[in-house]
This record gives sequence, C-alpha cells and structure tokens, in this order.
Amino acid sequence: MAIQANHSHTIEWVLAQLEHIAQFGQDKSGVTRLAFSKADHQARQYIIELMQDIGLVVHVDAIGNIIGRYEPEGIQAHVPAVVTGSHLDTVPAGGKYDGVLGVICGLAAVKRLKERSDIKHPLEVVVFSAEESSRFNFATMGSKAMAGLANISSWKRIVDQEGISFASELATLGLQIEHIGSAARANNSIKGFVELHIEQGRILEQGRVNIGIVDKVSSPTRLKITVTGMAGHSGGAPIEERQDALVSAAMIVLAVRNIAADYDYQGSVATVTILKTFPGAINVIPGQVEMWVDIRGTEHGSIIEILQEIKDAISTIADDNDTPVAIEVLASEKPMILDYTINKTIEDVCQKLKLTSLRLDSRSGHDAMNMAHIAPAGLIFIPCKEGVSHNGSEYVASEAIAAGLAVLTETIYQLAK
Amino acid sequence: MAIQANHSHTIEWVLAQLEHIAQFGQDKSGVTRLAFSKADHQARQYIIELMQDIGLVVHVDAIGNIIGRYEPEGIQAHVPAVVTGSHLDTVPAGGKYDGVLGVICGLAAVKRLKERSDIKHPLEVVVFSAEESSRFNFATMGSKAMAGLANISSWKRIVDQEGISFASELATLGLQIEHIGSAARANNSIKGFVELHIEQGRILEQGRVNIGIVDKVSSPTRLKITVTGMAGHSGGAPIEERQDALVSAAMIVLAVRNIAADYDYQGSVATVTILKTFPGAINVIPGQVEMWVDIRGTEHGSIIEILQEIKDAISTIADDNDTPVAIEVLASEKPMILDYTINKTIEDVCQKLKLTSLRLDSRSGHDAMNMAHIAPAGLIFIPCKEGVSHNGSEYVASEAIAAGLAVLTETIYQLAK
Repeated sequence: MAIQANHSHTIEWVLAQLEHIAQFGQDKSGVTRLAFSKADHQARQYIIELMQDIGLVVHVDAIGNIIGRYEPEGIQAHVPAVVTGSHLDTVPAGGKYDGVLGVICGLAAVKRLKERSDIKHPLEVVVFSAEESSRFNFATMGSKAMAGLANISSWKRIVDQEGISFASELATLGLQIEHIGSAARANNSIKGFVELHIEQGRILEQGRVNIGIVDKVSSPTRLKITVTGMAGHSGGAPIEERQDALVSAAMIVLAVRNIAADYDYQGSVATVTILKTFPGAINVIPGQVEMWVDIRGTEHGSIIEILQEIKDAISTIADDNDTPVAIEVLASEKPMILDYTINKTIEDVCQKLKLTSLRLDSRSGHDAMNMAHIAPAGLIFIPCKEGVSHNGSEYVASEAIAAGLAVLTETIYQLAK
Repeated sequence: MAIQANHSHTIEWVLAQLEHIAQFGQDKSGVTRLAFSKADHQARQYIIELMQDIGLVVHVDAIGNIIGRYEPEGIQAHVPAVVTGSHLDTVPAGGKYDGVLGVICGLAAVKRLKERSDIKHPLEVVVFSAEESSRFNFATMGSKAMAGLANISSWKRIVDQEGISFASELATLGLQIEHIGSAARANNSIKGFVELHIEQGRILEQGRVNIGIVDKVSSPTRLKITVTGMAGHSGGAPIEERQDALVSAAMIVLAVRNIAADYDYQGSVATVTILKTFPGAINVIPGQVEMWVDIRGTEHGSIIEILQEIKDAISTIADDNDTPVAIEVLASEKPMILDYTINKTIEDVCQKLKLTSLRLDSRSGHDAMNMAHIAPAGLIFIPCKEGVSHNGSEYVASEAIAAGLAVLTETIYQLAK
C-alpha cells in the first residue's frame, strides 16, 4: 500500500492548508466567505497559486470554476480525465471544512498520485464556483454550469441581498454571463468524478463508521413566501382589527416545522431559514413579511407531499387572518442517484484500507449531483463532530480527514491507473 | 367669531403645505422621512424658511428642536409663552399627516393670531426632533430634551440599524450630544402647551365625533428579545435534534399576540414589530433571532401584567425548545395624565365652535406627554380615515383638518389673550 507511505506528512500539509484558507473571511463567529466576496477572491487566488506550486496547469472556466490539471507524460490530451473537487465558498459564519476539505484533499491526492508512473488518465482538481446558496439563493452554480445545466436567462436576474447582481460579480472576474454556456464539459471528457465532503449529519458519528458512500443526493426545493398584511401604528389598532403579517408568518413557521417533523422519518426536512419584517420599525405593525423555505429530501414523492401540505397550511392561515400570501418556487430539483460502479470502487477501497463504511443518502446538495449528469460520479463522506455544519464550530478530527484522504486518493488511483 | 373669518383661505394654505412637505421623502409606498435623514433635513429647512416668512424668530435648540417665536409688541420677553407644535419625522412608508399636521396647523394658528391686538403672551410653534422611534428605537427625543428628561449617557450609545450614531447625526446639525441638557426649558417659561394630532385609532370616526380631547397618553414599553439556537445545515439535522431559533421566535410572536388580545379591553396592546433571523442564509437553520416588542397602554398596571405574562411565556418556550432567550427592556415609561384646565378650555372651545367632542386616552405616545412635565399640556385629536396611520394610505378629510385648526387656534387664543 504505497498510498499510505509518508502519510502523516501529507496530513500535516492538509491540516495546515485548511487552517490557512480559514483565515480568508474568519472572525469570532466563524468563516464568512460568500461566493465571489473579497474573502472568496483571496481564497481562490491562494488556491490558484497552490495548484501552480504543485505543478498543475490552471484554467478558469466561463463561470469561474478553477480547474487544476495534471497530464501524465505521454498521455494524449483527449483521454478522459479523472476529476475531483469541491468548493471554497461558505455560508455566513460557516466552518473550516465544508467544501474546502474536498479541494485540499483533492490537491493532496493529485500531489501524491503525480509521483506514480502508472497513471493513464489526466487528473483534475476543480474548485466549483458558488456552491452555497447563501449569497445568491441559487446553489451549486459552478457545477451546474460545468454539467450544462445553467439557466442563463434566469441567472441574469439574480441579485444578492444588497442588490448586487450575479452577472456583475462574474464581470469582476472578467467573465460574461452570456458565455456561461461554454463552461459545459463534453460527456466523454470525464472518466469519473469523485468528491470528498463532510457528512453534515450524525449518521457516521453515531454509527462509529469511518466512511460514508452516498447513494442518492437530495436537491433542494426553495420557496419564497410573501405575507401581506396592513401596516399600522403599533399603539393604535386593537388586536382584533389588525392584519399583522408577522402573526401569520409565525403560524407559517410553526406549520412548516410540524409538517417537516411528520416527514422526518422519510429523510425529508423543511426549514424556514430567513424571515424579514417590513417596514421594520419598532412602532409599526408589520405590513409585510418575506420568508424563505428550504425543503430537502432524497425521496422526490415526499418532497411533493411536503410542498402540498405547506401550500394547504398557508392557504388556511392566509384566509383566517385576512393576510394574502404569495408563494414563489425558486428551485425544485429532483434527487440524484450516484454511480453504482464508482460507489463499488469506493467500497472496495475502504475494505482494502481496513476502514469501515456504509451507504447513505445525503440530505444536503453537493456538486457531485450535477457532475453525475455528465460523468459517473461518487461522493465520499467523513464524519464531522456532532453533525454540526454551517456553523463556526464545525469540526472534523484529523483521523477522519486522514481516512477520507486515503480513500479519495486510492479511489482516484483505481479510476486513473 | 373672528377666528373663522377668512377660514377657507387658511385651510387651503394648510392643505397645500401638507402636500408640499409630503414630497420630502415620498415614494409610491408612502412618506419615509426618518429622524435626521436627508428628507427630514429638507423638511426642517423648509419649515425654518416658512416660519421666517410668517415673521417668527427662529431658534434651533441643543437637540435640533426648531422653535418659531412671535412676541407681541410691548410684551416683555420673560412673560411665559403659549406653545404648540408636533414633529416632521415619520416612520418608514408613513403618512402625510402624523406630526406634520400639528406643525402646519400651529403655524396657521399663530399666523392668524398675530393679527389680533389682544395677545398678551409670546406664541411659539415647535418642531420636535426625533419623535418617531423608527430610526433610533427611542421616541419623542426632542420633547424629552426640552422637558429636561434626556438621558444623555444612554443616548450617547444610540445607533440606527446602519450603525450610524445619534450623536453623529446631531453633529451634522452642528450640535453636540454633551450639550443636550441646555435644550431643557425652565418650568415658568411656558404658560401652556397644546398639540394637534391625528387620532391613529377609530374611536372618533366610529363615534362620528369631531374632536378628541386626550386625558391620558400611553407611553411605550419596549423590549428587545434575543433567541439563541444553534445554526446548522438546513438539509442536515433532523427536526427533533434542532435548536431552531426561529421556531421559538414564532411561538413568542403568537404568545405576545394572544396576551395582547387578552388585555385589549383595558386599552393595552403589545406587538412584535421587527424580527431578524441570523445568519439569514437560505440553507442555514436560524441560529439566532432578534425581535423587538412594543407594549402600549394607558393603565400602568396592565402594562406591568402584560410584561410579566410575556416573560413567563418566553421562559417556558426557551426551556421547552432548549433555546435560551434574553430580554432587554429598552424603554419603560409611565402613562401621563394631561392638564385638567387646558382640557376644560378645549372642551369649552369645541362647544363654542359647535363641534362635538369626547374625552379619550391615547395609546400612542406624543410630544405633549413630555411637555406635561414642565407645563400644563393638552392634546387635541381629529379623526383619520379608518384609524389607519403609520401607513402610506393615512388620510384625513379637509373638514376634519378645518375643525382641528379652528379648535387649536381658539384654544391658543384663550390661553394667550
């Protein structure tokens, strides 16, 4: 097992890189490195230089995906590549591992595999742009574009909470939104895609399992709900005469929570993640509330049912309180099944490396689910402490990282040899 | 009744001024003229010029209150003044009448009374600074300062939602927060204070009464509530394992609403007016919620009871959901009883002018409640359409304005002759 030689040295390198990248956007509450923010630009620039140091040829595609490529000597350029990667952007006050782990371990794996003489395919590490939906309300944009799934006419309308457009942020990278289509990769250009990511749940930790092998990835369904009441003086109007948009919104929050609890056993959840009151003054009854709902599940049927139940509950609340409610479906994607053969390869690698593994579904979306549209794709999970993620206290033990790196490296090797 | 001569001409002037001032900060949703904003500065400058046109001597005090003064010939400067006035600042997307009405009608009254030879007291029209709490979360700041009720050490810490300090906004007027104390007026400098304001409720309209005479003014009790949960991936954590701060916050919104409904018959209300979710990303379970509660009532006892019930409800919700809740009391003022003699004068004036009147309590706070600390103070209400206020659709019929103006003018005359 050549893979594990000089292993501790590589792990030290990975841990040091994770700490270094965490500095871009870190404050006391966590790492805030929203897509295309200043911190994200800094991290991206750092990775480009790191890729060059490792000896990769770096290319930035039409949506800003960073592709670091190694071509073994004597291998022709048209030979399909074995690709790994993940993302550098984070949620607000997020953790040090979500996304970054897959990028750094991908680089560590390629760094190692470059030393081997029996690699017969180009190797690529990709940093996918805008994986998190925190800034633009759209998720996994970079991998969607690479898989030819970009919806350019809709993406042209995207603005963040400050009103800054996605198109103008792309432009700061010298990229034009009209050209995003050219980020799409041909089906036969990739032999296989493997992503390493933290689980963001507690299944592996609770089962004391080293490695999760993802069968199915949930894709989010996202709603924007607007409740319209009647603004008024918060000292003036008697309670019974009011149309308080926040009272209706509170009922919707609890309805969503109760519906989600009913479907939890099917692996589906729904969450009201953002709520804003308007006009937002201490002495005015809320006249309008905007709220965003994130629905996840790996069973498409249960998502449809949750959506219908939420709509029914909202309709009743709107009528009872005389506060009309508008529902806009921002995203509605089907769960994605990952590749059987790659999963089998990962499973065999775990066995070979004497690591325990189990098959599971992912309730969070990942770039691998888009890459699965154009290549056989696999997703490797390692446990994170107490399942906590999207939080500054996200933590992954170095033993878990070592296991994940070993499995990723050997899986890429099996695909590329 | 000399007062009503040339009456229709004066009403036209008042209506034209109200429309003119509404332009400062108007957009399609209403008038947004937050305290010390650009629109507020424009309106203030306009009023200063209007006062000068009318022949008033204008003085801006240490908190930016604008005082337009008329001294009848031969009257000594130390003779106590009869003072009227209200405010120019608005809530976000507010109306054209709240506050402005009392300023413009005050000017129209003084304009008229200047023509009379039997005025024996100086007359003053005051524009009070920062009456609305929308920007700085503190209400009636200008009249508090004039009444010697400013809390300078606390006001030094005030910042708006953009982080701009109250002190720095004062500085743009060339005023220093340390000197606010000098805005306080001596007890014997004011013979009486009368304010004209819209009711912001439906009692007058429903009773088809021309004039409301306010016995008691409610003062707000304000809470800031912070719910702390645990941020996490909105696809990751099962519902039962979550500490979703927004779910607890929604329960608190409904608890406040239900408690308020119980006390409504006592004339007290409580409203959650602002709610903010953190980190505020579509894919993160809310880890923290901040919410602001406005409690109003003219019975101090019922406010205390509401406060206790809200605290009890919050305590239960915090424990049940494992989401600690912190409560900060931002303001807690006692209701203020207005002057018996001035109210009797207003009542007699109404009778004389053949206008119907009734005594009522005000659930909204007004500058008159602070002025009552240093002078006999009265507050005259006129009906507004459907009681709607703090809303762009706020509307007052010109007949109601004419009645209010007539009562204000004659009341000032009775006090000043």
